[in-house]
Amino acid sequence: METHLTDLSRLIRPRSIALVGASDRPNSIGERTLTNLLDHSEFDGDIYLVNPTKDEIRGRRCWPSVAALPATPDLAVIVVPAAGVLTVAEECAARGVLFAIVLTSGFGEAGEEGERAQVRLKEIADAGGMRLYGPNCPGLTNVNHRLGLTFSPSFPHDLVKGPIGLATQGGGLGRNVMQAMERGIGIGLWASTGNEVDLQVADFIHYMADAPDIKVIVTLLEGIKDGPRFVSAIQRAAANGKPVIALKVGKSEYGQRAAQSHTASLTGSAEVNSAVFRQFGVIEVDDIDELVDTAWLFARAQPGAAEGLAIYTSSGGTAALTADAVGLSNLTLATFAPHTRDVLRDLLPDYAAIDNPVDTTAAVLSDSALIEKTLSAVANDPHLGCVIVPIALDYGDTTIQMARTIIAAQQACKTPIVPIWMSDRMGEGYRMLVENGFAPPRSVGKAMKAIRRWVEYGRWKRAHPTLATSTPTSTRTVASATRALPETEGKRQLSAAGVQLLPNGLARTVDEARALANGMGYPVVAKIVSPQIVHKSDIGGVKIGLQDAAQVAEAWNSIMDSVTLARPDATIDGLLIEKMAPRGGIELMVGVTRDPVFGHVMTFGLGGIYVEILRDVTRRMLPLDASNAAAMVREMRSFPLLDGARGRPPADIAALEALLLRISAFVVANADRIEEMDLNPVWVGAAGEGAIPLDAVIIERAEPGRPA
Amino acid sequence: METHLTDLSRLIRPRSIALVGASDRPNSIGERTLTNLLDHSEFDGDIYLVNPTKDEIRGRRCWPSVAALPATPDLAVIVVPAAGVLTVAEECAARGVLFAIVLTSGFGEAGEEGERAQVRLKEIADAGGMRLYGPNCPGLTNVNHRLGLTFSPSFPHDLVKGPIGLATQGGGLGRNVMQAMERGIGIGLWASTGNEVDLQVADFIHYMADAPDIKVIVTLLEGIKDGPRFVSAIQRAAANGKPVIALKVGKSEYGQRAAQSHTASLTGSAEVNSAVFRQFGVIEVDDIDELVDTAWLFARAQPGAAEGLAIYTSSGGTAALTADAVGLSNLTLATFAPHTRDVLRDLLPDYAAIDNPVDTTAAVLSDSALIEKTLSAVANDPHLGCVIVPIALDYGDTTIQMARTIIAAQQACKTPIVPIWMSDRMGEGYRMLVENGFAPPRSVGKAMKAIRRWVEYGRWKRAHPTLATSTPTSTRTVASATRALPETEGKRQLSAAGVQLLPNGLARTVDEARALANGMGYPVVAKIVSPQIVHKSDIGGVKIGLQDAAQVAEAWNSIMDSVTLARPDATIDGLLIEKMAPRGGIELMVGVTRDPVFGHVMTFGLGGIYVEILRDVTRRMLPLDASNAAAMVREMRSFPLLDGARGRPPADIAALEALLLRISAFVVANADRIEEMDLNPVWVGAAGEGAIPLDAVIIERAEPGRPA
Repeated sequence: METHLTDLSRLIRPRSIALVGASDRPNSIGERTLTNLLDHSEFDGDIYLVNPTKDEIRGRRCWPSVAALPATPDLAVIVVPAAGVLTVAEECAARGVLFAIVLTSGFGEAGEEGERAQVRLKEIADAGGMRLYGPNCPGLTNVNHRLGLTFSPSFPHDLVKGPIGLATQGGGLGRNVMQAMERGIGIGLWASTGNEVDLQVADFIHYMADAPDIKVIVTLLEGIKDGPRFVSAIQRAAANGKPVIALKVGKSEYGQRAAQSHTASLTGSAEVNSAVFRQFGVIEVDDIDELVDTAWLFARAQPGAAEGLAIYTSSGGTAALTADAVGLSNLTLATFAPHTRDVLRDLLPDYAAIDNPVDTTAAVLSDSALIEKTLSAVANDPHLGCVIVPIALDYGDTTIQMARTIIAAQQACKTPIVPIWMSDRMGEGYRMLVENGFAPPRSVGKAMKAIRRWVEYGRWKRAHPTLATSTPTSTRTVASATRALPETEGKRQLSAAGVQLLPNGLARTVDEARALANGMGYPVVAKIVSPQIVHKSDIGGVKIGLQDAAQVAEAWNSIMDSVTLARPDATIDGLLIEKMAPRGGIELMVGVTRDPVFGHVMTFGLGGIYVEILRDVTRRMLPLDASNAAAMVREMRSFPLLDGARGRPPADIAALEALLLRISAFVVANADRIEEMDLNPVWVGAAGEGAIPLDAVIIERAEPGRPA
Repeated sequence: METHLTDLSRLIRPRSIALVGASDRPNSIGERTLTNLLDHSEFDGDIYLVNPTKDEIRGRRCWPSVAALPATPDLAVIVVPAAGVLTVAEECAARGVLFAIVLTSGFGEAGEEGERAQVRLKEIADAGGMRLYGPNCPGLTNVNHRLGLTFSPSFPHDLVKGPIGLATQGGGLGRNVMQAMERGIGIGLWASTGNEVDLQVADFIHYMADAPDIKVIVTLLEGIKDGPRFVSAIQRAAANGKPVIALKVGKSEYGQRAAQSHTASLTGSAEVNSAVFRQFGVIEVDDIDELVDTAWLFARAQPGAAEGLAIYTSSGGTAALTADAVGLSNLTLATFAPHTRDVLRDLLPDYAAIDNPVDTTAAVLSDSALIEKTLSAVANDPHLGCVIVPIALDYGDTTIQMARTIIAAQQACKTPIVPIWMSDRMGEGYRMLVENGFAPPRSVGKAMKAIRRWVEYGRWKRAHPTLATSTPTSTRTVASATRALPETEGKRQLSAAGVQLLPNGLARTVDEARALANGMGYPVVAKIVSPQIVHKSDIGGVKIGLQDAAQVAEAWNSIMDSVTLARPDATIDGLLIEKMAPRGGIELMVGVTRDPVFGHVMTFGLGGIYVEILRDVTRRMLPLDASNAAAMVREMRSFPLLDGARGRPPADIAALEALLLRISAFVVANADRIEEMDLNPVWVGAAGEGAIPLDAVIIERAEPGRPA
């Protein structure tokens, strides 16, 4: 799949625009778009109105067609009815228009006929080298340059400039984010890409990653159409040090079904999405207000190495509630520097809490000089990550004074002060904080979620000082015909790829079996080898713990009897004889599947009977790098089991990481043919003993190289 | 500990009140309290002002002392400085005043001297049979009868009457809840109990459980002073069908430390608190806005047996986001009745989603008749739990129309409609919803938390149709001297209590050991028995898997050698010989500890190496009833392991439940002496095979009956 990474600057800041379908019929799409463009934008390029039925609109000349225009515009905004869109698009493409925004609905979202029209629209644009935005979208809103290429009557209401870039598919939730401007949040650019016939959310993330006026990228996703393009875009953002904050719906079956019915896009697996986000530093949030809270914290300050938080409040209960939220988020309360403690001890009453959290008590709230000095002492404590000021109440003048103090303290220090407005009463104090750019989160829990994500992104960045570029493996749709490799063949391929295995071999006769077992030493395992049999244990095809040659012979007979009884049709290649894993050790699992969006994905975690119940697994898109492998091992909830918990010897973590990397390399090298792998269990011994797949199922396409 | 359950009605609705320390000095506590009482309350009983330095205040006569009053008031509100409080309290007690509210600070929260004064205050009240509220509190706010026994200048601002009762310790967070009145939430009574020298939050929960004007009880706790009193109160609420919604700070170390420094109260273990809440149906929330959202949903409607939810919105993205939240909360989207589907299909456009979630699409938002008919069809669908209407945007008139439709639809149906106001723009539509009692939650996530708690409370109520009264075991502080019973003695006691054990016996000689083992059959386990040795394995005191008499003899020698080498001081009683548990089965654990607030508490969960890492455990206060035992087993994350997952035979759940109940009965019968028990592992076999403790540590006070 090619990754279209055109420069979008002439779409976002065109030099000239044609509005095709301009109208003066009140409240029509054409009229609303024209109004946004003429009355509410600050556009100084050329605007051409196209409407064959009018000579002029609002005193401006109308042209009968795009072909008739005196010059070729950079951008055509198409608002004609669906039936006319294809003709207009053809004219635009013929004329050499660079970009077309199609606001009109009635395409992919509107049944089969619409779907056909949409395919044709794409063909027209591709043939003419014109890039398409939409159809079925509210348009593009460039706030920082005040250009509304949209029919939305909300455009003039949401014009707070700022460093946040917003890329969404649907319009409703996107407008919700725009209305966060009420809290003083500035959003410089909003792309709402609709049906994404050509340009996708990923393209705008990529654009924003390079745009100098955008510091933080926010995205709302219902589905990711093109995994490689998305991965490329988020890597670009990471390389440029810009956080990407994402809300992806479809994490549950209900959500997935609803998202599919809304956008008809491929939603992919939520677990895989989340894993890819984590892998490339994308900050995933769970709710739309969290998106805004988190983005704004990043817009205010980048997280540094200092993670310790301070809490400053005048209510003891609020101090305890907030401290609790810090603890439950696995964040740290800073220990104040001696100077800070001295100031607090000198100024605050005896019964105040001068440790972190600082509780001034409500008694001193009216002493504004004291509040100012103590808050400022805290905010200037060296090595703080941020200062949290939960405001439980709107107490009128007292709270206004507190707001004033916060504003002053922030002007004098770099550490971000995060006021939390906890009350439903939102008076003057709230308004002052909003006007001064604090955009207070509305609850302790929401603030803490934003702060936790901010701190964790800082950690991620420090753990990834340089970023190797990673491209998903082939996302080609799974072949309809696949086959499981015989275990002997699977293990041979793994061994050739450098994967450590226990001594094993294929015995074609009972004598060969005894000889193999004698050669490798006891105890051994014997397993049936047959191309037709995958679930070997179920039909008596496996015997473990064989202690000597006699038991091997006995196992041979017993397995052959069971298997021929159960599967008289199966071709028997013989028995796989393998040395048994030593006692002790821990059972893990490594799996690989092919995701339709992100290509091959590795799943790693606890094996054995706990796999399905505890679901203690973690995932990464392939290829892995060393930092991914290390992170996967440490993300397991059961990691303490590997790390020497309860007096156990520490496990061979180095061998485990090496195994993950070798499997990744093996899959990437064979990406065309491998559909699935399941190494379960993988035995991990103590340090130095290795990490060894005991069973290996590899499923490949039946005819490699030929799409099924 | 006695449980003071006086009738509080003369405190909450006194017939006459003395304000001791009444003042006309502007902004003094005495003046503010007087203003609340005279200007902002609607009190028609007698008010006596007491102030020895004045003849009259605001034209009302002042009395020099409580002793000088012409009649004995039901209630004295004491606002004199701390130094004078004890004398006033003595006078009040002598005069026969029923209740005293002490607003004054400077007691338990203010160092040792204050602590001593507080003890004396309690003695005075107890001696006179007078009940005390406070000290160090903002007072008592009776909104439903408009009586402000408080110095707070906020009293006149927060007077929305309603069915919620609020009991808090600190004042700050309590006032935060009161300010939720801005969202139209009505709170009939607020007790903020301060230092709780006598009356506690529990007493007000108990009062509210009986108060006819209170339907829902909300409590904010920093610590629970008296476990039995609290348990009695929440059981009273449950018996009267009133939900109790609790936010308890101190769930993390930070929060616990901050709460302790604020209230100097015993915070107890957060896990135990949460377990007791769950046990008695108390709805625990994590943040203060969640407290309010949840309480209001209960105030609007009680959950019924129908749990299915409906989502109705005009934005596809919002539909998907909300559906996701439903799925992630393990809640259910209802399947609409045929009639509902017919109406939606007839009225909505083709491209709308007529399944649940319903997405009308924004295109039809202006058609108010259509919105009204379709929303009303959904709201009247039979067997819905509630209808969620997420409103992503404030679109001015369109949103006002939506608000109007919601209000009308709610008037015509019983199923609660829960609008969610997701936008930071809070215009006229929002105001209309607030004024009509919807108190919209502010995010999808917050709404879903409230709805999930509401649904789960309904389930809890159905699972507990009748409630047996349960009282905590002794919470007496742990004796300083404890001892571990020898395993033989512990198992003898358990066996006497009806607990199933494997055959076992104490062997004093190697011959006895062989004879015992031969009698019970092989394999067996041998363990050292010595009063001085608890951790037997660490010093080679345990041998497992002994297959015959020779191995038993060998084990005898080996254990005796190791133990005498490691612990030459220890008295050796012999070896415990016990039959080994059959292969298969699952290792669980049962523990008992004594909580300082709630007495004996049982911990049950996964045993073996996973105990500490996966922490898959659940807890209950003792005594257990059968429903508790059943719930504990099913609450384990690993319950599918017991329930026949992955083709395993279902475990002996009946035996497991019986074991929990027997251990509970055993501990309750021996509550005075047992400090701790640890049965780990408990072996559970397939159905019919039993649930058998393999190891048993019982720790009792060294001198039962005598406090150490």
